[in-house]
Amino acid sequence: MSDNNTSSDSKSMVDTPSSQAPNMMWGGAYSEPPADIFTRINASISIDKRLYRQDIDGSLAHAEMLARQGIISWEDEDAIRQGLGKIKDEIERGEFQFKDNLEDIHMNIEARLKEIIGQPAGRLHTARSRNDQVATDFRMWVRERCDALDQLLALLQSALVRRANEHSGTIIPGFTHLQSAQPVTLGHHLLAYVEMIARDRSRLQDARARLNECPLGAAALAGTSYPVDRKVTAEFLGFDRPMANSLDAVSARDFALEVLANASICITHLSRLAEECVLWSSTQFRFIRFSDAYASGSSIMPQKRNPDAAELVRGKTGAIYGALTQLLTVMKALPLAYNKDTQEDKEPVFRALDTLTDCVQVMTGMIDDFSVDSESMYRAAAEGHPTATDLADWLVRTLNMPFRNAHHVTAQLVAAANAQAKGLDQLTLAEMQKIEPAITEEVHKVLSIEHSVAARKSYGGTSPACVTEQVRRWKEVLGDG
Amino acid sequence: MSDNNTSSDSKSMVDTPSSQAPNMMWGGAYSEPPADIFTRINASISIDKRLYRQDIDGSLAHAEMLARQGIISWEDEDAIRQGLGKIKDEIERGEFQFKDNLEDIHMNIEARLKEIIGQPAGRLHTARSRNDQVATDFRMWVRERCDALDQLLALLQSALVRRANEHSGTIIPGFTHLQSAQPVTLGHHLLAYVEMIARDRSRLQDARARLNECPLGAAALAGTSYPVDRKVTAEFLGFDRPMANSLDAVSARDFALEVLANASICITHLSRLAEECVLWSSTQFRFIRFSDAYASGSSIMPQKRNPDAAELVRGKTGAIYGALTQLLTVMKALPLAYNKDTQEDKEPVFRALDTLTDCVQVMTGMIDDFSVDSESMYRAAAEGHPTATDLADWLVRTLNMPFRNAHHVTAQLVAAANAQAKGLDQLTLAEMQKIEPAITEEVHKVLSIEHSVAARKSYGGTSPACVTEQVRRWKEVLGDG
Amino acid sequence: MSDNNTSSDSKSMVDTPSSQAPNMMWGGAYSEPPADIFTRINASISIDKRLYRQDIDGSLAHAEMLARQGIISWEDEDAIRQGLGKIKDEIERGEFQFKDNLEDIHMNIEARLKEIIGQPAGRLHTARSRNDQVATDFRMWVRERCDALDQLLALLQSALVRRANEHSGTIIPGFTHLQSAQPVTLGHHLLAYVEMIARDRSRLQDARARLNECPLGAAALAGTSYPVDRKVTAEFLGFDRPMANSLDAVSARDFALEVLANASICITHLSRLAEECVLWSSTQFRFIRFSDAYASGSSIMPQKRNPDAAELVRGKTGAIYGALTQLLTVMKALPLAYNKDTQEDKEPVFRALDTLTDCVQVMTGMIDDFSVDSESMYRAAAEGHPTATDLADWLVRTLNMPFRNAHHVTAQLVAAANAQAKGLDQLTLAEMQKIEPAITEEVHKVLSIEHSVAARKSYGGTSPACVTEQVRRWKEVLGDG
Amino acid sequence: MSDNNTSSDSKSMVDTPSSQAPNMMWGGAYSEPPADIFTRINASISIDKRLYRQDIDGSLAHAEMLARQGIISWEDEDAIRQGLGKIKDEIERGEFQFKDNLEDIHMNIEARLKEIIGQPAGRLHTARSRNDQVATDFRMWVRERCDALDQLLALLQSALVRRANEHSGTIIPGFTHLQSAQPVTLGHHLLAYVEMIARDRSRLQDARARLNECPLGAAALAGTSYPVDRKVTAEFLGFDRPMANSLDAVSARDFALEVLANASICITHLSRLAEECVLWSSTQFRFIRFSDAYASGSSIMPQKRNPDAAELVRGKTGAIYGALTQLLTVMKALPLAYNKDTQEDKEPVFRALDTLTDCVQVMTGMIDDFSVDSESMYRAAAEGHPTATDLADWLVRTLNMPFRNAHHVTAQLVAAANAQAKGLDQLTLAEMQKIEPAITEEVHKVLSIEHSVAARKSYGGTSPACVTEQVRRWKEVLGDG
Repeated sequence: MSDNNTSSDSKSMVDTPSSQAPNMMWGGAYSEPPADIFTRINASISIDKRLYRQDIDGSLAHAEMLARQGIISWEDEDAIRQGLGKIKDEIERGEFQFKDNLEDIHMNIEARLKEIIGQPAGRLHTARSRNDQVATDFRMWVRERCDALDQLLALLQSALVRRANEHSGTIIPGFTHLQSAQPVTLGHHLLAYVEMIARDRSRLQDARARLNECPLGAAALAGTSYPVDRKVTAEFLGFDRPMANSLDAVSARDFALEVLANASICITHLSRLAEECVLWSSTQFRFIRFSDAYASGSSIMPQKRNPDAAELVRGKTGAIYGALTQLLTVMKALPLAYNKDTQEDKEPVFRALDTLTDCVQVMTGMIDDFSVDSESMYRAAAEGHPTATDLADWLVRTLNMPFRNAHHVTAQLVAAANAQAKGLDQLTLAEMQKIEPAITEEVHKVLSIEHSVAARKSYGGTSPACVTEQVRRWKEVLGDG
Repeated sequence: MSDNNTSSDSKSMVDTPSSQAPNMMWGGAYSEPPADIFTRINASISIDKRLYRQDIDGSLAHAEMLARQGIISWEDEDAIRQGLGKIKDEIERGEFQFKDNLEDIHMNIEARLKEIIGQPAGRLHTARSRNDQVATDFRMWVRERCDALDQLLALLQSALVRRANEHSGTIIPGFTHLQSAQPVTLGHHLLAYVEMIARDRSRLQDARARLNECPLGAAALAGTSYPVDRKVTAEFLGFDRPMANSLDAVSARDFALEVLANASICITHLSRLAEECVLWSSTQFRFIRFSDAYASGSSIMPQKRNPDAAELVRGKTGAIYGALTQLLTVMKALPLAYNKDTQEDKEPVFRALDTLTDCVQVMTGMIDDFSVDSESMYRAAAEGHPTATDLADWLVRTLNMPFRNAHHVTAQLVAAANAQAKGLDQLTLAEMQKIEPAITEEVHKVLSIEHSVAARKSYGGTSPACVTEQVRRWKEVLGDG
Repeated sequence: MSDNNTSSDSKSMVDTPSSQAPNMMWGGAYSEPPADIFTRINASISIDKRLYRQDIDGSLAHAEMLARQGIISWEDEDAIRQGLGKIKDEIERGEFQFKDNLEDIHMNIEARLKEIIGQPAGRLHTARSRNDQVATDFRMWVRERCDALDQLLALLQSALVRRANEHSGTIIPGFTHLQSAQPVTLGHHLLAYVEMIARDRSRLQDARARLNECPLGAAALAGTSYPVDRKVTAEFLGFDRPMANSLDAVSARDFALEVLANASICITHLSRLAEECVLWSSTQFRFIRFSDAYASGSSIMPQKRNPDAAELVRGKTGAIYGALTQLLTVMKALPLAYNKDTQEDKEPVFRALDTLTDCVQVMTGMIDDFSVDSESMYRAAAEGHPTATDLADWLVRTLNMPFRNAHHVTAQLVAAANAQAKGLDQLTLAEMQKIEPAITEEVHKVLSIEHSVAARKSYGGTSPACVTEQVRRWKEVLGDG
Repeated sequence: MSDNNTSSDSKSMVDTPSSQAPNMMWGGAYSEPPADIFTRINASISIDKRLYRQDIDGSLAHAEMLARQGIISWEDEDAIRQGLGKIKDEIERGEFQFKDNLEDIHMNIEARLKEIIGQPAGRLHTARSRNDQVATDFRMWVRERCDALDQLLALLQSALVRRANEHSGTIIPGFTHLQSAQPVTLGHHLLAYVEMIARDRSRLQDARARLNECPLGAAALAGTSYPVDRKVTAEFLGFDRPMANSLDAVSARDFALEVLANASICITHLSRLAEECVLWSSTQFRFIRFSDAYASGSSIMPQKRNPDAAELVRGKTGAIYGALTQLLTVMKALPLAYNKDTQEDKEPVFRALDTLTDCVQVMTGMIDDFSVDSESMYRAAAEGHPTATDLADWLVRTLNMPFRNAHHVTAQLVAAANAQAKGLDQLTLAEMQKIEPAITEEVHKVLSIEHSVAARKSYGGTSPACVTEQVRRWKEVLGDG
């Protein structure tokens, strides 16, 4: 894709350019053919052919507007419409021949249109340039992907909510520093990701709203002297409005950067969940087990269930971060308006959003797939003295003991339990009273991990009651029965 | 900053830790002091002391809520309030002694509070942990910065609009590929940046709205068994609501990533404008000139006016991209909930937002500062045959010539002009009619660059009329008289 | 690519895996087929089929070593050799059918080998695993590319040296801050890039030497109990030695990171040169002009010669930086030994090195292509008072004037010249002596830019003599007649 | 730091610039003061004051060369030497007043030198510019740090070798996909990192050799007309030679990029080791335990030993990747020669190398610190059927069974063992012979994990014998008794 050539420019009047001959697209001033290596790095058709549908839709809207405004005749419009319809069919049936020497999707379609309908093809490019055309196509493509990702992320949320509901009371260690800290519920843990993904979706929605302005009509860079109606094309193509500055319209790529940034943040969240899948399915944790659908293994080492799917999600984080770095680098310090550098915008966006789409889907599958070893989780949650905090809190609350003392007493009780290699809850009342006479039998109530979990019912807390309440809220939000 | 220690944990009962002695913060189980190198990389106080105000505000809100809920007495609340007020004063007067061995801002303030008010200091940490505390502080800091940046960006927009208004009709070459393509107006060019910055502001506002949920009350990671009222603290601190999941509350850093991404996109725009400042102030362009306030130079080479300020903005782009890469890397694949890695979140955010704040301000100064050499711009815009496109359009429109022919005729006319080393507009009607007899005198009207610019009045186009209209709209939006 | 399965593992005994059936590669323990989405993201064949030649060479070496050591029979070795030869032919003739369900290049080749030669195919994987196999293949691929790039970079150096020789005395402004600072020679400027590229080559050579150790024989991760001779396979495959630690052999990807880093630094240099090509070919500079082979344009705006090739090199910088970010992200915090994440190593390396290869070639073409407008360059170099520094130096040296005074006198002379709108060299002796009586006629000698350039003959300086000397040195180094 | 001002430029004749007054550094042509915000972002002294020692050493070398060449008198040289010595003392005693309005370390020192010795101070800048000066200083700083890091990395290697020696026979699971795959020795695992770090050191050494060329004498960008001897200054300052092109000398920052890339690769390795420290010290693994010197914890949850030091190393990976991204971004597409953007080179390099220095040291401390729970490791290594591979290999080797059959038999034996919930090695010969009659008692020998490990004695394998041999080699290389 290149340049600022509006309707009258020779680029729209391609005949039969070939890498052998002087470049016909640039007209008679060019007497030598481009160097082969230049042709190779210049062509973007292998990448941008994915925009064919957007390109055709954009041309249909443009042609209809031109006819409405009396800039072209309705006969020409009709020929164009039919020709483009045929091209779309050819592409979708795999019969279209993409040619490198036609550089990009726009020229490939235009050249074919000329073959099919002849001269009216040349009218289509009136009051348009490849610069506003590609910007429009690309925005439409990104917009569709935002919508598709939003849906897929909603499905991932639904899967997480389903599992959270199922495990609203399943106890699992709450880790800090990968050390068991306090018992939490598995449902609560899974809901944390529902929250993160909600923000990821909200970010994509914001980006989608912000990008939904139409560049068409900006022409090469300066607008056009034809009496176009940009509102009409914007509306036809589902945009909220035309962009308000033609230089901005052809130069801006912040919409692509924003979506890449959002994708990067989203994959960060998926990478965290993926890491937990890897950890939890290890022999050392044994918290979950993937079925054959999401693990690979070895028949002679049947205990080995490699969490390849999770590892791939974690690894593919790199591809998305890399795409963001790539486009940021491309855009840095580019003067207005169009520069050829910008051609390098589509490949990273395609790659990143394809990757994210795959990762969201595979993660949804994994969440639905894994079976939970709740005994293993419970055992892990019970190790150490996970309710020591609850004990100290009880001393403060019930005995009105100052913190320092409460803490000191707790440490002594923990030491006493350790000395007998038992849990805090296995200390008898007598053993406890030896250390702090004011302790009553009631204390045992707070020493179970079930109690500990149930007691954390502050808003957003880990108690099964809170989880159930949040599950209810999310089902409503997600429209899940 | 570290760990999941709620109220009863020894961390809240610091006495006089020292790097010499076993670490008192971790209580009696620790018999050896930490290694010096560990102490050094562990301490975050040199970075996070910037959060002192947020930390104190958070503590005030927390204490008042605790008192309201009857969890601590109003007497204690009063002591805490007075103690924290005194500490704030000490810090702002530069009298506060920050200590590395107290690790972070939270412990520094808490330890000092204990010195001042004694035992009630220990009550403050009830139903709170450093994990929710730091997350709250950091969100408040980022929120403030988003607001401040929004204001500064509005000032930059105002400066651009002012200059655009002044130059709504000043003609400058519109470049593609850094080659003069079509004449545009300087006002139009400057307004393109107003649009970009409008989206930058909108992104920051979206981020600000999304982050404005309060982590306080999530405690270490699981919520708390104290009857806290999270809505109250959220409201006191200007948050829209408490976060709905305690694990998410202490683990999430997507708000910081989002702001870094937004900052990266914003500096991309500034870097483009900076690049243009460098180009335009070069001897080769001579479009603008910076005063002594924004250029550096040499008294013996007075023509040399180095655009250092613009170069610095361009160069500082790296610092912001780097900060984004940094935090994305930190967060990749971190399991829930708190991990010490997260301590590395603040430095890049501080650095990036400080840098962006400086760059926005210096850019605003530069926009206001430069003087325009409109003759130079005009001369550059007139070079080549910048209205060849207009000529071809005229042939299509007036003579109803098919494109191909129009283009062919134009190319011949250009060649004729070149042969006589004159501009298209200097060809006589006779000379033109030799090539295309149907051409009429009227054609000369479209051959001036003034006409070319004035004709591009499609919505968002470069014509002075469009610029004036957009300036009017922006003045209204910005509230600029 | 995946896993730690050595010879006895079922992976080497593929029958007819299909995405329909339970995965045969993992043997009987797997009763369900993998999920479609998992199959999709798991397969790497579309990427790693490029390693086919390395994979076959590696297998040939491995088979011969196995036979030498008596681990397999020479008959089997012969069958394997012939089968692999046939497969290579099939691939190179485009007749080989790559299958997604066989995951990767290794399994595709092994499965085909089994079809061709039957049971002996199963012997090939003795004492080997896909983990050491892929690491070996990949190192060989990267090694080849380092060598190829080294050659291409040498050609770019030769082109630069050729042009430098041609322009050893052509004067061009030396810029700082994109402001003309002191005159330099074009040859000197071009040689600066020869130096940069020399270091780029040296970095690639160092990386190549460092990576040239053979992982083969590390097996899955632990080495093997078969009596293999790793030195023999290493030697067969052109490696300097076998890697000394089997865990390292299968886990290490620093060789790929290093090459990506080197590619990033190299493209940084090319991007600087590309930027200069864009600037220099602009209307404002007019220093150089690209022919039709490396520029694109418009027949109706013949003055417009878009430096697309240069812009693409500049833009493609992003792809290489992005690839580096990608792999750094992938490798961060991966525990030993093999993890599936590592499968994401090849795509960024392929992409980055393909891109760099293209960029080096197109840049070489551009250097050879451009024509120089030496008049334009000279005119630009003469603007301002480019020899003011020379004047001050003369005052210091000849009149033994202290700096401060010399500088003060120069500033006055510059002001006097400016007042008359002439160059310093156009001031008469009398005019000069009015300001500083001790000045003699000799001063005029140092005021020409030719003198200025010629005088800078300190080692590495810009004088034509220095350039000629460096050209001579480089021709020798590069073996250019 | 800025600009191309050689000796005669006013910049070297600073009096008492102040942010209030017009900038004296740029001489009389500047009548207005710089804007405050410009002054703020322009000053680099807060960053580059760390170069004071290199700057003084560079000046001493330069002055002595000037005197030797007769460009300044020995009296002046003597004054300069004494003045600079005094300044060095002042700085090291903390008595030197750094001033923002003097911008950078060079101007700060020069201005102070003038205060101390008067006029001869002005001679020092003869035939030198800040451009070559800062490039020289920075190279010397980076060179020192490479050397220091090399030493520290050697200490880390020594620590790893020590622990590897201690644990040459300690059995630990060898993981792939974080699933136990085959038993390996802890010594072997630790030696893998010794290999990685060896390559990290080798990369730093290569970078150090490549950067060790002296820019001094390149002056602003073009070399100098003074009869300097660049070889002499290069030698005085420990460089191998002067740089061969003055434009390259002042523009090149690839040395900094290379060191940042090397640092990034090195921290990747450390992050992998750090991740393993986190995993291994978790309750779920219990392979190692950190003492109070490298862990943090809680007195009431004494089982909790947070591996903060390891997490910090992992987290700080981001800072180094970020610094690399930062400088790559800064350098992208910068035209020659000096641009102010380059001022942004030092902060990321200082930050990255400081961070890496800390991380290497803390990691060395951690390696020396942790205690090993070899029982836990052994138990984990024995889980599943870790010797199934050995069994299949035995069938192939001893019974000459084709792979497919061997594998099939092994799978059946594994199933039989699982059915009785025992290990493979606990199957009786009779039970085995029911499945494969040809099996002999000898098979039991290969079924122990000790045998499995001992058998992997291919070069670089995991057997204790191999480990011991490699330890011996490394001790020799490292010069460790």
